[in-house]
Amino acid sequence: MEFDVIERYFRPLSFVSDARDFAIGDDGAFITPPPDKQLVVVTDTLVSGVHFLPDASAYDIAWKALAVNLSDLAAMGARPAFYSLALTLPQVDAQWLSEFARGLADCAAPYAVSLIGGDTTKGPLCVTITAQGWVAQGKALRRSGAQPGDDVYVSGCIGEGGLGLSLALAAKTALNDQQQQALLRLHRPQPRVRLGLALVDLAHSAIDVSDGLLADLAHILKASSVGAQLDYAAIPLTEAVKAWAQHQPMQPLQAGDDYELCFTAPRSARDTLIDLAGLLNLPLSRIGKVTQQLGLTIDGQAHLARGYQHF
Amino acid sequence: MEFDVIERYFRPLSFVSDARDFAIGDDGAFITPPPDKQLVVVTDTLVSGVHFLPDASAYDIAWKALAVNLSDLAAMGARPAFYSLALTLPQVDAQWLSEFARGLADCAAPYAVSLIGGDTTKGPLCVTITAQGWVAQGKALRRSGAQPGDDVYVSGCIGEGGLGLSLALAAKTALNDQQQQALLRLHRPQPRVRLGLALVDLAHSAIDVSDGLLADLAHILKASSVGAQLDYAAIPLTEAVKAWAQHQPMQPLQAGDDYELCFTAPRSARDTLIDLAGLLNLPLSRIGKVTQQLGLTIDGQAHLARGYQHF
Repeated sequence: MEFDVIERYFRPLSFVSDARDFAIGDDGAFITPPPDKQLVVVTDTLVSGVHFLPDASAYDIAWKALAVNLSDLAAMGARPAFYSLALTLPQVDAQWLSEFARGLADCAAPYAVSLIGGDTTKGPLCVTITAQGWVAQGKALRRSGAQPGDDVYVSGCIGEGGLGLSLALAAKTALNDQQQQALLRLHRPQPRVRLGLALVDLAHSAIDVSDGLLADLAHILKASSVGAQLDYAAIPLTEAVKAWAQHQPMQPLQAGDDYELCFTAPRSARDTLIDLAGLLNLPLSRIGKVTQQLGLTIDGQAHLARGYQHF
Repeated sequence: MEFDVIERYFRPLSFVSDARDFAIGDDGAFITPPPDKQLVVVTDTLVSGVHFLPDASAYDIAWKALAVNLSDLAAMGARPAFYSLALTLPQVDAQWLSEFARGLADCAAPYAVSLIGGDTTKGPLCVTITAQGWVAQGKALRRSGAQPGDDVYVSGCIGEGGLGLSLALAAKTALNDQQQQALLRLHRPQPRVRLGLALVDLAHSAIDVSDGLLADLAHILKASSVGAQLDYAAIPLTEAVKAWAQHQPMQPLQAGDDYELCFTAPRSARDTLIDLAGLLNLPLSRIGKVTQQLGLTIDGQAHLARGYQHF
């Protein structure tokens, strides 16, 4: 793709915080690791018609492509630092690229994440981002650390991404506030970066909710060789999500696209987590507990989770 | 994509060399940086019908997707360490995936590069790899270091990728040995990793030849604010490439897909580079010199290079 595209739209998204480092403009970037940190690497791809609707705006596509990667970093307790962008586009459209770059810039700004390079190619619309961050040596949050007796938590509200998708697919126009919020959550998820950083010394395990709360919690349970009992009434659902789920109460727990963090923490962390929720202005709901007995139950009923997606 | 796909085809490609590190199976990987090194990050995407023919084998697609990234690392003098894979596929085909994984494994083996994670999604065939390596602090080879008086070198032979593509497009069947070699070079380029490592203390600047020798050398010249004079007769071309270029002598220098290294080095490095060529069993041809005067001439004739692709 034209050099021009890179210079005009992407170079402004790039900076280095260390004078010894270098980003866009060579065969690759080079970065000096901070002392005593581990590098955390995550990759997510969004494909048109699969991960976003064909009529999605360039701004929203860019936002979501970066946000879902930052969400993975958050789940590991990493501080986001930089990302690479692989953008495949049917044609070069200045307006589209300008909006796309603005979406990246706005999503990156709160975390000072820098674009360090990538590749622009011609082809069906597809965005792959590899995002990287740093975590103190040995401190990365894992799926595998859940222990029997841990509380199970989820941040924010669950099911809004799913409700948002159903609203977008139905192309409804007269939406109430909560429905509008659900649409926004679908298009512009908020990665829980600050929560992830704070959980490093509090949580035993964590994952981000991308495939649905139950499927993602199941990843934790499997990796930790434990089970869990959930209390449906404790799962945070907005009134709009409850109305949507009226006849299918499990729907919000299976829908995915939430990008909240699901994590487990010992009982001793309860007070600190209440304070943290206040500090972050983000609900942290205690929705159940980890059990030695394998399996996942909700209000005592056994539940099987869906398949897996990432690796 | 099915968890099964990851477990069966991709997990065998993954290993960590440090017991404190972790690769596939969580939201991300985490890696302990070696002391006093900088991280080098490169990204390249291959799209079906753009970077490879629609009938290309899964093995060759995988090989090339990894090789072009290793070639970028080589151009920076980095030692390849790990890579992330974003694979978008129209459908899950066990035979295809098995061949794809074999292509990655074979390309990675000589350099002990590990797959550390990624994303598999449904969509038009597209492969993005982000590869990473390590280089001693401050030692990364750059495009911008060329100095007037430097010799200009290129490794291996030039134009075989271009010849290979023309043969593949013509679907010729009766090929001589050099033509078959050109096809192999197109499908399975050899990243010049060992050369790149050796050049760290010898070369002033380097780039890998992906867009064509002249276009890539022009990147060096622009980044270094210098010019160059090339001697056409010194540019290494096989007899098959010369025959192909009979009526268009610039064609092999513009065709791209060579994945050789083009670099500049001071006169004082000549003897060492002759020894190195012997050691690596890889021709290193001195094809011209860097000049203070801007521009690129071949046998005294001014030449303008094509556009740019990577960033």
